Amino acid sequence: MLDTGRTARRLESFVQGAWRAGNGEGKPLAHAATGETHALISSDGIDFAAALAWGREVGGAGLRRLTIHERALMLKEIGLRLMDMKDEFHVESLATGATPKDAWPDIDGGIGTMLTFASKARRELPNAKVLTEGPVEGLSRDGSFVAQHILTPLRGVAIHINAFNFPVWGMLEKIAPALIAGMPCIVKPASQTAYVTELVVRRMLQMNILPEGALQLICGGVGDLLDHVTGQDVVTFTGSASTGQKLRTHPAIVANSTRFTMEADSLNAAVLGPDATPDTPEFDLFVKEVAREMTSKAGQKCTAIRRVLVPRDHQDALIAALSERLAKTAIGLPDDKNARMGALASCGDRDDVRAKIAAIAAEASIVFGDPGKVQVISGDADKGAFMSPVLLHCADPMTATAPHEIEAFGPVATIMPYDSIDQAVELAQKGRGSLVSSVFTNDPDIAAQMVLGMACFHGRVMIGNRDSAKTSTGHGSPLAPLVHGGPGRAGGGEEMGGMRGVKHFMQRTAVQGTPRLLSAVTGQWTDGAPARADQHPFRKSLAELRIGDQIVTEAREITEEDVEHFAHFTGDTFYAHMDSDAAKANPFFEDRVAHGYLIASFAAGLFVQPDPGPVLANYGVDNMRFLTPVYFGDSLRVRLTCKDINPRENAVYGEVRWDCRVSNQKDEVVAQYDVLTMVAKTWPVAQA
Amino acid sequence: MLDTGRTARRLESFVQGAWRAGNGEGKPLAHAATGETHALISSDGIDFAAALAWGREVGGAGLRRLTIHERALMLKEIGLRLMDMKDEFHVESLATGATPKDAWPDIDGGIGTMLTFASKARRELPNAKVLTEGPVEGLSRDGSFVAQHILTPLRGVAIHINAFNFPVWGMLEKIAPALIAGMPCIVKPASQTAYVTELVVRRMLQMNILPEGALQLICGGVGDLLDHVTGQDVVTFTGSASTGQKLRTHPAIVANSTRFTMEADSLNAAVLGPDATPDTPEFDLFVKEVAREMTSKAGQKCTAIRRVLVPRDHQDALIAALSERLAKTAIGLPDDKNARMGALASCGDRDDVRAKIAAIAAEASIVFGDPGKVQVISGDADKGAFMSPVLLHCADPMTATAPHEIEAFGPVATIMPYDSIDQAVELAQKGRGSLVSSVFTNDPDIAAQMVLGMACFHGRVMIGNRDSAKTSTGHGSPLAPLVHGGPGRAGGGEEMGGMRGVKHFMQRTAVQGTPRLLSAVTGQWTDGAPARADQHPFRKSLAELRIGDQIVTEAREITEEDVEHFAHFTGDTFYAHMDSDAAKANPFFEDRVAHGYLIASFAAGLFVQPDPGPVLANYGVDNMRFLTPVYFGDSLRVRLTCKDINPRENAVYGEVRWDCRVSNQKDEVVAQYDVLTMVAKTWPVAQA
Repeated sequence: MLDTGRTARRLESFVQGAWRAGNGEGKPLAHAATGETHALISSDGIDFAAALAWGREVGGAGLRRLTIHERALMLKEIGLRLMDMKDEFHVESLATGATPKDAWPDIDGGIGTMLTFASKARRELPNAKVLTEGPVEGLSRDGSFVAQHILTPLRGVAIHINAFNFPVWGMLEKIAPALIAGMPCIVKPASQTAYVTELVVRRMLQMNILPEGALQLICGGVGDLLDHVTGQDVVTFTGSASTGQKLRTHPAIVANSTRFTMEADSLNAAVLGPDATPDTPEFDLFVKEVAREMTSKAGQKCTAIRRVLVPRDHQDALIAALSERLAKTAIGLPDDKNARMGALASCGDRDDVRAKIAAIAAEASIVFGDPGKVQVISGDADKGAFMSPVLLHCADPMTATAPHEIEAFGPVATIMPYDSIDQAVELAQKGRGSLVSSVFTNDPDIAAQMVLGMACFHGRVMIGNRDSAKTSTGHGSPLAPLVHGGPGRAGGGEEMGGMRGVKHFMQRTAVQGTPRLLSAVTGQWTDGAPARADQHPFRKSLAELRIGDQIVTEAREITEEDVEHFAHFTGDTFYAHMDSDAAKANPFFEDRVAHGYLIASFAAGLFVQPDPGPVLANYGVDNMRFLTPVYFGDSLRVRLTCKDINPRENAVYGEVRWDCRVSNQKDEVVAQYDVLTMVAKTWPVAQA
Repeated sequence: MLDTGRTARRLESFVQGAWRAGNGEGKPLAHAATGETHALISSDGIDFAAALAWGREVGGAGLRRLTIHERALMLKEIGLRLMDMKDEFHVESLATGATPKDAWPDIDGGIGTMLTFASKARRELPNAKVLTEGPVEGLSRDGSFVAQHILTPLRGVAIHINAFNFPVWGMLEKIAPALIAGMPCIVKPASQTAYVTELVVRRMLQMNILPEGALQLICGGVGDLLDHVTGQDVVTFTGSASTGQKLRTHPAIVANSTRFTMEADSLNAAVLGPDATPDTPEFDLFVKEVAREMTSKAGQKCTAIRRVLVPRDHQDALIAALSERLAKTAIGLPDDKNARMGALASCGDRDDVRAKIAAIAAEASIVFGDPGKVQVISGDADKGAFMSPVLLHCADPMTATAPHEIEAFGPVATIMPYDSIDQAVELAQKGRGSLVSSVFTNDPDIAAQMVLGMACFHGRVMIGNRDSAKTSTGHGSPLAPLVHGGPGRAGGGEEMGGMRGVKHFMQRTAVQGTPRLLSAVTGQWTDGAPARADQHPFRKSLAELRIGDQIVTEAREITEEDVEHFAHFTGDTFYAHMDSDAAKANPFFEDRVAHGYLIASFAAGLFVQPDPGPVLANYGVDNMRFLTPVYFGDSLRVRLTCKDINPRENAVYGEVRWDCRVSNQKDEVVAQYDVLTMVAKTWPVAQA
């Protein structure tokens, strides 16, 4: 079974480019399942102000020299290598009390989250150092004064104060977006399980992939670290509301308006829809999900289901089914293959959970499990932090407060009956802000009514039903592309959410000026900025192409024959093109008009340079708008301008976005869109 | 001159549907320019908890019954009517000490900001009650489990605690986005100038356009209001950092993670570029802008220029030019047409500015103006809060601290020499976070280097040069489409920024589920949700059309003749379509391929229903991507599905967005895009 004979490891901090042991012997950290000392931790004597300065000066500068794709590729490389090492992390993780299955979301899920960020950043963000956001906003009629929002990395350090329950995921989901944004990080894991984080950071730093100073680690207390934060730093916190509130009101954080993100207590609800009677698949799925959320990681998840809302008529059936399922939960040592639930993180945590259950029980009764008694299939129930799942039932949840307010951070949930959909929504809202709730229903109207009623109190709402039974990622899993964090009691924070999460570590700035000067700042061509027409831009590889390279074409007349011909060739004989009377009756047209697709096709015919060259493909079109009707006899010309150049790190080509405007003989813009092409870095194309 | 004979007006609060006078006589508010009592203010005895509850229950419910466009149209109507009444507001505003020209940004600018929000909301947001944000995220390989982010209005009240210097704009720029989002507001103007706000609110409420409870007003102190906030309320604050920090750490705000936005002190810089020598237009523009920012509203603007950064060689020329210009500032009564600068808001404010100047002068010397002496062309310099513009010069700004830290909220600025662009950036950063800075340069490289260096410390950066001299909205003007707010010392808040500002009053929630259930929540059809193919959807008016209405077309083969024909007809003879060898050499193609525009044109030919009908026009295409090459002999079919329906409030039609997927004979998607159409609400089209 567990190798408990090893010597307790002395954890170190990594600051200012070196691993450093804290002063003194260090505080012992107990193995959750055996109670033996597993590691020693101390950060005494660490120079926290110097660590911050090192991060800002060395780490920040190093990261800002790289583009977003370069940073993302570093994380990809690190993630792939960590994945190869994960067995080592799983072994270390046993000391936290988590079974390997429970550690999966932490270790595999954490690395996967980092890889998702690395991949999404390269797919969804440009290969640049500055991001633009939203369109160019015209601020003057003549176009001489315009604005655009840009995002640049903050010049401080992202300080991540993490919770004990996800020592790996909690770190990686936070450093991934920060590092991609270009912000160095200081990770401070909760002491209790810091040995897992320390091991993973050690392996990451051994790879020597990150720029110096980009990642520092503090094992132990943070000392006076927060006294030194500025308005350019970011502090994220996951843990208890009481600690979070202390940090939020820290004088330096308040005085400097330091960005502070908190993810704290959350009394997440799961609602069984009124349609999900005991004979439906949704009822069974619900029972399974509630039991799973109660027992996985021994219920020590911020997202775990704490409140179980059930139509009053089905509460007995639910209690019976849940109790039956929970009774099958074999509890034992984390590495015991027969154990379905391991230990809580420490005996102190277990005692706290017991106290919370007692408080909830003032307004509810225990219907399954005994908080004071546990039967284990392996390990020593007196030394390890084991406990039985405990299910409570609150008969009058509309007037009760404790079950909506007290978070027992263990394998504990409370069943609450409801009488109407509105009441279910009101009960869910009584959590006063949660990370996530779920609704189990197969009825679209019930889903809409419940989700829209609950949404404003939640960062995430999951709908469970038969059709996603096999593919659902479950109530409890935060996912990299989705927002994680909830309002109110849940802390008011927002993490991840795909590339939104990267922007949390950047400053949004509106930049105003003439198109020429704005283009110089953003690196993107803006209408009104100078253009260059020295050579057809399709003849230029990325090595030669510059934003502003432009072609203005000859004019082409659109005839009735063209429209007739195009209509019969394509089959698009829509009345507005074919029937003068019908077109005139239309509120937008004065007569028959040319097809939008005809305009775009003729435009391509006008601007394309046909010979083999560096332009490899037209892979798409964005924001195409037909702004002015084109009538027979109108004469069209095209202005095509290189707007944005986005070379790929790992390919012989990159994306080029062209501003395309088609005008008529009166210089009215009839169509406007972005043409998206792949262009070779060199011509002829280099062999990859 | 001023009508100082009127009786002091007793201000009232509007809470719980009625105008209510506070207890007692009320605190006297002095006319800024005469010192006479202009109004009396008291909120003693107001039931603040009841006001909050009224807003949440009555106001919130009333607003949430409306769509975003309906809310925006209310604001448009209110804004237009306020514009007609503005003369009355300008008269009332004279008591604040501001000249009519100074009051323009407050009154006309405030109403204009509201109108911009009303118009942008209808242009950029759907006519719906729920917003979606970002794409549908696939969470399972088979598409049975997906997610999308939605935004719903928070269920609390937006409490706006505003500053004295913009009694109208400060209110309207905050309530406009909140009301459009669907959140009721409580406005608490700074007492000093609350009489202007009270008058405007009175006029707004007399219009009887807003739902009951949507807008409440507190004239006087906020009493225990903040004790009752929850995690669903939002508190915005504009004013001094010290008050802001007190509010930010208010126990109820901290305990409930109440959203708190702050806009506080800001030592905004203006930088003269090294290229902008005294003989350039930029130098003259810079002098004009600095003088204007110092004197307009007597320098009582959060965005005013406080730090004037100049290349060391040109500091003497700048001091001379600025002093000459400032000397022309005629100071007098606000309604004196010859006065270019009025009074500060109160004598207390003036005394505070004098004290701050003394503190800055410890590290700088006064080069223009005497803080203790002022010459007025009208009014009584002893009774009114008049003062002269004061220009300081700090010889060693890299080591000085006071000029970077102390905000003298009056007609005061400090000139600072710099030696290099990097040093200019460093000096700008020494403000430790500002609302706005500006750079005056005509050189794109200097613009890029300075703006990118300063951006992360600023919410807005303006570039001034000769080409925008006439059209620039200026350093000091926040604009509705642009973010207003800065990091660090500026408070860390973010307001406006176009529709971003609306989202500040909404909760973002990730919703997960099957496509069918997700569609029920968002009201948008999602791939995988059920579709209906009862009748060609182009035959349905908005009255009949539903999301999910679909047509799957016959197949059409693409032949070499088609491609040849299309190429010669359009002129698009790009080598990938015409030349087999060249196409094969291309990294993306195995042989000659069909044009993307040909695919889209044929697709339209396949899905269009040609007869006159409710579909009025195809006004655009979004996110068109060519995903798989189409070779000769491939056979294409189209699936077109109604994805989103967006009726217009004031028209006989609305926008319909169609999901369009073109597949080949192997069921590979070759092209995917959104087709945008205008569809009549009824067919035949009703007369408008």
